[in-house]
Amino acid sequence: MKQLKIIKIGGGIIDDATSLAQFLQLFARVEGPKILVHGGGKGASEMLRALGIAPQLVNGRRITDAATLEIVTMFYAGKTNKAIVADLQRNRVNALGISGVDGNLIRAVKRPVREINYGFVGDLKPSGVNAALLEDFLGLGLTPVICAITHDGQGQLLNTNADTIAATVAIALSKQFAVELHYCFEKNGVLLDVNDDNSVIGTINLASYAELKEAGIIAEGMIPKLDNSFDALSQGVSKVIIGHALKIGDSLKTVLCLN
Amino acid sequence: MKQLKIIKIGGGIIDDATSLAQFLQLFARVEGPKILVHGGGKGASEMLRALGIAPQLVNGRRITDAATLEIVTMFYAGKTNKAIVADLQRNRVNALGISGVDGNLIRAVKRPVREINYGFVGDLKPSGVNAALLEDFLGLGLTPVICAITHDGQGQLLNTNADTIAATVAIALSKQFAVELHYCFEKNGVLLDVNDDNSVIGTINLASYAELKEAGIIAEGMIPKLDNSFDALSQGVSKVIIGHALKIGDSLKTVLCLN
Repeated sequence: MKQLKIIKIGGGIIDDATSLAQFLQLFARVEGPKILVHGGGKGASEMLRALGIAPQLVNGRRITDAATLEIVTMFYAGKTNKAIVADLQRNRVNALGISGVDGNLIRAVKRPVREINYGFVGDLKPSGVNAALLEDFLGLGLTPVICAITHDGQGQLLNTNADTIAATVAIALSKQFAVELHYCFEKNGVLLDVNDDNSVIGTINLASYAELKEAGIIAEGMIPKLDNSFDALSQGVSKVIIGHALKIGDSLKTVLCLN
Repeated sequence: MKQLKIIKIGGGIIDDATSLAQFLQLFARVEGPKILVHGGGKGASEMLRALGIAPQLVNGRRITDAATLEIVTMFYAGKTNKAIVADLQRNRVNALGISGVDGNLIRAVKRPVREINYGFVGDLKPSGVNAALLEDFLGLGLTPVICAITHDGQGQLLNTNADTIAATVAIALSKQFAVELHYCFEKNGVLLDVNDDNSVIGTINLASYAELKEAGIIAEGMIPKLDNSFDALSQGVSKVIIGHALKIGDSLKTVLCLN
């Protein structure tokens, strides 16, 4: 089975131009077919403030009203995506910057309003991913660079969590490829002690994940990331790795497996 | 030879949501392989003003400093491009929104500084267009939607005139396709009398173009558009049509030909 690496980078790397450039150099050296999924960073919030629109976040998730959607679309699909693609082209990677609306790549459903109205936020299913198109792009030697904007097929763009996009795309492509999903951030992996960058937990399986949550060692922002990861593994993704964006390929990282 | 229509829309249509939606419905009905090239509209200037950056225009061309480039990239590649693609997807056109950096689609050269320093503005040659990639995209049943941002291959994005992009892409594809290039705007065609919308000149060839310029009937903004058009015709494009964006297919239009 063909190998495919799906690498997701988040805000911390994107917000720092030097880190981002370093990461993209490392990404350029990753061998074989690959896809980059990126989040947005703090820039969108700063621009919202500069335009007099107060950013609203609940549990770290953005409430996306119409004005906010317009700005985050500009920021993610315009500024961040094209800056990344330009730099990858400079590094001789034939990157193709796309969002979930392009080529009907990722069709989502607007999140139903329950206790919280998240606004124009998309929820995903693997069946909403146009896996055939990504396979075609990879076959053309292109490296898709996907930003966290999707659509509902009825003309509505939707702001969508980038971790979830990475996991859902990984699942959708795991029929055609042996997929390795990398979540890259500013830590060396999942840490036993958040204050000790070297306390990386080498391997986590479903049983130890439950224990680590129970003990409060894995908490807050890491829980949705790990939930996404185990969901991906249970639906066919070969391997999930959580590690530092500037240490891709390094042995210091957390490898997730089901058993 | 396979037919291909390249259709360019400008600011006047993009600035009005109702006109844009009407145009996109008409565009959806255009048969056969097609490419849409779009300009930016006034929104980018408004956003620049809202952020305290004064837009600078010389002879209708924007001076693009680094801050301006960032905003126009966000606006063209983010907001306008994705809004158009989402609406085309709703209209069952499998649109793929891209800029010139994506897949190394359009490589440009930063305009040399002479009397005016245009800043980060790109000049084009047909050899800078990745015609093979566009052919691949069309072969996949995709409809490329191209915004007016290109790159220099060294990591620098460049703001680029959308009329010129349309003509240059048309020339580059005229080896593989019989290309019809449509410049769509808010007039019915090239007018004998700018105050009479029905005074459309049905056909203009190189000889009559010279006469119409001499007589002052064709002036200002129409000159670069027609220069682009005749350049395209002389380099292999089959047909250039100038007409109203909301009357595609209508008989009221100007057809350009060499002889």
